[in-house]
Amino acid sequence: MADNRSRALEYAHQNRTQFLDTLKEFIRIPSISTDTTLKADMTRAAEWLAGQLRSLGMVNVGIHPTALHPVVLGESPNPKDAPTVLIYGHYDVQPADPLELWTSEPFHPEQRGDNLYSRGSSDMKGQIVATLKALEACQAAGEMPVNLKFIFEGEEEIGSPNLKSFLEKNKDRLTCDLVLNPDTSMIDSETPTVIYALRGLGYFEIRLYGPDHDLHSGMFGGIVHNPAQVLCELIAGMHDDYGRVTLPGFYDKVVPLEEEERKELARLPLGNGYYQQQAGVLKLWEGEQGYTPIERVGARPTLDVNGLFSGFTSEGSKTVLPAYAMAKISTRLVANQRPEDIHKSLLQYLQANVPDTIRWELILHSGGLPSLSSRVSPGAKAISQALKTVWGQAPLYKREGGSVPVVADMQDILGVDSVLTGFGLPDDNIHAPNEKLHLPTWYRGIDALVHFFYNVAEG
Amino acid sequence: MADNRSRALEYAHQNRTQFLDTLKEFIRIPSISTDTTLKADMTRAAEWLAGQLRSLGMVNVGIHPTALHPVVLGESPNPKDAPTVLIYGHYDVQPADPLELWTSEPFHPEQRGDNLYSRGSSDMKGQIVATLKALEACQAAGEMPVNLKFIFEGEEEIGSPNLKSFLEKNKDRLTCDLVLNPDTSMIDSETPTVIYALRGLGYFEIRLYGPDHDLHSGMFGGIVHNPAQVLCELIAGMHDDYGRVTLPGFYDKVVPLEEEERKELARLPLGNGYYQQQAGVLKLWEGEQGYTPIERVGARPTLDVNGLFSGFTSEGSKTVLPAYAMAKISTRLVANQRPEDIHKSLLQYLQANVPDTIRWELILHSGGLPSLSSRVSPGAKAISQALKTVWGQAPLYKREGGSVPVVADMQDILGVDSVLTGFGLPDDNIHAPNEKLHLPTWYRGIDALVHFFYNVAEG
Repeated sequence: MADNRSRALEYAHQNRTQFLDTLKEFIRIPSISTDTTLKADMTRAAEWLAGQLRSLGMVNVGIHPTALHPVVLGESPNPKDAPTVLIYGHYDVQPADPLELWTSEPFHPEQRGDNLYSRGSSDMKGQIVATLKALEACQAAGEMPVNLKFIFEGEEEIGSPNLKSFLEKNKDRLTCDLVLNPDTSMIDSETPTVIYALRGLGYFEIRLYGPDHDLHSGMFGGIVHNPAQVLCELIAGMHDDYGRVTLPGFYDKVVPLEEEERKELARLPLGNGYYQQQAGVLKLWEGEQGYTPIERVGARPTLDVNGLFSGFTSEGSKTVLPAYAMAKISTRLVANQRPEDIHKSLLQYLQANVPDTIRWELILHSGGLPSLSSRVSPGAKAISQALKTVWGQAPLYKREGGSVPVVADMQDILGVDSVLTGFGLPDDNIHAPNEKLHLPTWYRGIDALVHFFYNVAEG
Repeated sequence: MADNRSRALEYAHQNRTQFLDTLKEFIRIPSISTDTTLKADMTRAAEWLAGQLRSLGMVNVGIHPTALHPVVLGESPNPKDAPTVLIYGHYDVQPADPLELWTSEPFHPEQRGDNLYSRGSSDMKGQIVATLKALEACQAAGEMPVNLKFIFEGEEEIGSPNLKSFLEKNKDRLTCDLVLNPDTSMIDSETPTVIYALRGLGYFEIRLYGPDHDLHSGMFGGIVHNPAQVLCELIAGMHDDYGRVTLPGFYDKVVPLEEEERKELARLPLGNGYYQQQAGVLKLWEGEQGYTPIERVGARPTLDVNGLFSGFTSEGSKTVLPAYAMAKISTRLVANQRPEDIHKSLLQYLQANVPDTIRWELILHSGGLPSLSSRVSPGAKAISQALKTVWGQAPLYKREGGSVPVVADMQDILGVDSVLTGFGLPDDNIHAPNEKLHLPTWYRGIDALVHFFYNVAEG
């Protein structure tokens, strides 16, 4: 197998031009999932991927319709005695507008210096092609070191509305030992990064009803409970003086941070200055006391107001005592919190704290599970070693504050951890004009993926 | 003078049909101040009033232009040794829409049973004509018992934007001993009522700025201070556990309620049930502890949220950590609070409580002074005795929660108290379809005003 690995790497190095051409071909399909006029291109992208899987010798390659955009599946023929890796990717991309801010056409990839500019180059067609090309190199070197399964969806950029039910329905054919999800990025081009945790989500709406119509604030101010004031008091009460969320039982299932993990997280070169600049604030919020910014944003659950509305909000003044007040409230969850528990917890809080002068309702808009993957599983070790081999240094381990529901859904439905990596960079302008891919990093990424598959095989 | 009084009352009783005809004539002019297409009717209404003043023998009768609708002035010829009463009224009315909800045409007065239905019949053309007819009766009986001045504005229903500066410019010609303002109403047809206090207003807008653009609540929740949350905390902090407003110095200038006044207010038949029904709530708010609803709404200052806005407020969910949050906040003030002091007090509160993670601004939208008139001044005694004579019982004294800036402005600019009375009833549908005037109460009101003028003259 050591010979195969060398031959695969040699193949990868010798075929970079061809790899890049393949990526450009994929990019030229404008697979914008939210644009209903591009349904034919979505199908074209799915077919293109199916073709790539067939070229790799995969079988049962199929394009499976969903309520919106199809899912592409495929798998190795004649499984052998080796781990099975399920590769996840999404072939859809973000819209390209505002078009006038692009230097070159978004779907005509243009190389300028070390970068390839185009929509989807980094998020995530580049990552998909890197994975496919690493496997092409493995195959060219002899045989695939592991058993493979593939799942490519076309709805990630619009919130994957059909993926969860698809996973549930196809649970049996997707059994595997681990998932490779190359949809993340590195901290910088010299710092390989593994994401091992993502936050979940519970998104709620609180509606408070006071008087049955808007009242004159002079004639009733002081004797009628103002639902906007009550809403503010309820929200203010959701955090204590230590920045902790006060909802009953909110922290009950939170997996605490161990000293070892905190040390690992502290290695990340993401200080206050980094986050201040990203957020456009002069000063960070102290938030939950006792935790660093990296910990607060990745390893601790939070609660945010996403929207507020009540009464008169136009220009000028109107002396109204509002009949109604509304807040959108979202919680970011960490393992092992579940959105349904948080829903209960918020219900309990409201039951205990809404005064009897006010009627209320609580709506659960959406929920998603958090995920936490082992940093010492065979898959985690395999990617860590691969990145170290290529970059000459062990990767940093990072928790993401955002949510990637597919990771938790796979953990929940398929019972497997995802290895989250990727070779995008923070300045890739994903979801923005002039998206680009840093090609030297991308080529190193292909090498790392070659190593990863052999590492998985060698256990 | 006793003979004159009797003759005047006799005249008033014998001329009711003519009085009503005059009122109908006035009502037929659709003087809606907010309707720019009715400017000619506004002028017509002003001219009609000027004609009435001339018929009463007044001199210096003039129609004085303002930036919008004119003010009508007039005064007694050859002032004699008697108190001078300045009579205030507004000749403008509210719009009539929704028209389809009217049983009869809003500007074609129709008598059904004891009521005269039409826009302006109660608010306040009926009150103006009652006053003019009481004076006509006095004149018919011999001579006017007091010196008279008149000021009729045409912008009350749109907030009197030009009245304050008009008062300032015409301060000298408006000197008087007391003002009669018949723009209020009675609690019920058998309960004569004197309003002796009105609340003032300070209306503000608080704007909070967090990050320089809306952020992803997953990537930044926990490390970036959420301005919507901060806004809620600031608003929640504006009341303490006893329902008191916490702004520094807020209560400093409040004239406390004396035991005697509280007893007087307690006579008002306005219990919880009355206010609950008016507001459409199942239960009143306890509000500031230690005060009854009547006291809280009339004699104590309050603070209300009139509007809230931040982030995402449409249907569904968007996981945004908002860049901006806004609240409209108004305070209702009682004597001797001043809106500029409350502005300072709110500034101080924000300076002390807005965290340094958030930028903020405070806007003063509008302010108006509270008013508090003596209940034992000669004018107050004159109206009290007049009402008692006609209704057979002493009037109730009431504080209004709303604001009528002209009363405080006259107190401030002319240095005189207003006698606030009026013969409207709570079910008159003012500002609504099917406004009406209860004629038996109106006729009694005319009698009471005859007595009032003689009472003032007799001191």
